[in-house]
Amino acid sequence: MAITVVGSLAMDNIETPFRKAANILGGSASFFSIAASFLTDVRIIGVVGTDFDREYLDIFSKRGIDVSAVKMQEGQTFHWEGRYGYDLSDPETLDTRLGVFSGFRPVVPRRFKGDMLFLANIDPELQLNVLSQMDSPGLIALDTMNFWIEGKKAALLKVIEKSDVFIINESEARLLTGEASIFSAADSIFKLGVKILVLKRGAYGATMFADGRFFIVPAYPLEDVKDPTGAGDSFAGGFLGYLDNTSDMTFENLKRALVFGNIMASFTVEDFSVERLLNIEFSELKNRFAKFRDMTYFGGLSI
Amino acid sequence: MAITVVGSLAMDNIETPFRKAANILGGSASFFSIAASFLTDVRIIGVVGTDFDREYLDIFSKRGIDVSAVKMQEGQTFHWEGRYGYDLSDPETLDTRLGVFSGFRPVVPRRFKGDMLFLANIDPELQLNVLSQMDSPGLIALDTMNFWIEGKKAALLKVIEKSDVFIINESEARLLTGEASIFSAADSIFKLGVKILVLKRGAYGATMFADGRFFIVPAYPLEDVKDPTGAGDSFAGGFLGYLDNTSDMTFENLKRALVFGNIMASFTVEDFSVERLLNIEFSELKNRFAKFRDMTYFGGLSI
Repeated sequence: MAITVVGSLAMDNIETPFRKAANILGGSASFFSIAASFLTDVRIIGVVGTDFDREYLDIFSKRGIDVSAVKMQEGQTFHWEGRYGYDLSDPETLDTRLGVFSGFRPVVPRRFKGDMLFLANIDPELQLNVLSQMDSPGLIALDTMNFWIEGKKAALLKVIEKSDVFIINESEARLLTGEASIFSAADSIFKLGVKILVLKRGAYGATMFADGRFFIVPAYPLEDVKDPTGAGDSFAGGFLGYLDNTSDMTFENLKRALVFGNIMASFTVEDFSVERLLNIEFSELKNRFAKFRDMTYFGGLSI
Repeated sequence: MAITVVGSLAMDNIETPFRKAANILGGSASFFSIAASFLTDVRIIGVVGTDFDREYLDIFSKRGIDVSAVKMQEGQTFHWEGRYGYDLSDPETLDTRLGVFSGFRPVVPRRFKGDMLFLANIDPELQLNVLSQMDSPGLIALDTMNFWIEGKKAALLKVIEKSDVFIINESEARLLTGEASIFSAADSIFKLGVKILVLKRGAYGATMFADGRFFIVPAYPLEDVKDPTGAGDSFAGGFLGYLDNTSDMTFENLKRALVFGNIMASFTVEDFSVERLLNIEFSELKNRFAKFRDMTYFGGLSI
């Protein structure tokens, strides 16, 4: 099996109270693909400018990620500048330059058309266009953001209707549905057509709704967070990568996949860009999974 | 066994976007004692004014809580007025009137002197005074707040040194120690003398450190939160009540106790004041514990 991801490839400037970094590899497709590559074959559909660092393309190739559908176009690569405060959450956006991404028209190569598909956070009209090019994708997973919920809701609702898995921030689920309770929000979203809903809670973990059941995990607690950028996309990469690897959609396996995504995100935030992700040994993922199990597991009542 | 709690008994005015309530039963000793009374015998040391509603005293008596050491003094009962916004966290304090609480000098009756002791959030000098009156308390547990950390740190450090269990908000642990990482904060606090540290995270649950081990739980997710007041003290009541009931200080039992506290707090916030707490059937506590286990449990890796 394999996963195709459609999303951004970026060169970011990131600032925290402890460090500034310029033109580092970013973008949803970068974090997602590297995280998922620990578990399955991954292909990226995206676009970069002629300024895109060749070393970054080598990073993908070394991890076995198929970049044959990444177009290089005359112009600048998508660029985001963000600044984090001491709490290392909710960055302030200092600058966004779309560059060649503004003209991005994804084309799905024939051999990707049966893959599991991750539609990362891009314009829902582009997401719809990608869906129309697929033949019979294994599973369709979707991310989005408040900008599209507010600005392109009609198109977004069409994408949601065609998707199996919806992965968004808890606050965005409230914004989309107008429901304060996450349970009511989930009910509304299931009526739109998805089968599995994952709500991300930033530094507090995630919740998952599927098969009329519910699962909740805290984030893996860390001694030292350096840069939260890419946590959500790495989480999605670990989650979907695990599902693609195991081909098991039971709720018990969805739980393990979610925890695996959680663990993947915990490595990402330990360094800037994809630095820590690239240095993970698979045994470290397994060890952290086991540690997390130990620190959240409790037995039945003794009274 | 029994637990003695030293803390406030209050009549509060609480305002949320959905309801206003005046002169409702509040105070740390109220929430703590009612929560713990589901599990063990509880005694309150406190003070109320002559305006204190007799029905509130009946509430304690009906739950078998010993109020013989609650003094009634000429004057007003402690009164707090708070307003919650739509997110139902971090209330704005509109008014605080100490009333008879400003002259509170706790006296520990002889028959309480061997009890487990919960020093709720009051002046650390009073907490020290209570400690000096105990003979050989079973276990000493302590709560405090930023006001005392900033204003009476020297006295507070002495109380911490004499305590076994320290239950505070995560942000207060950072304030107390000057450490951003909760692991570093815990290391610093253990050096001050406690054996078990519980960090409360509001709507996101709690973490626990003991025996060199670590445990993390999300909060029990609720359809409808009405009033978060008293959640922390109910949590402490469930946690310590469970420990007193089971007399088992292994880490595995500490975990169950923490989850039981978590569940107790989840009932408290479902209504104003102690309304929901008073209507709990023990079977509901057990059911919610089992449901929580189901929604957080995951098995080992399948890859």
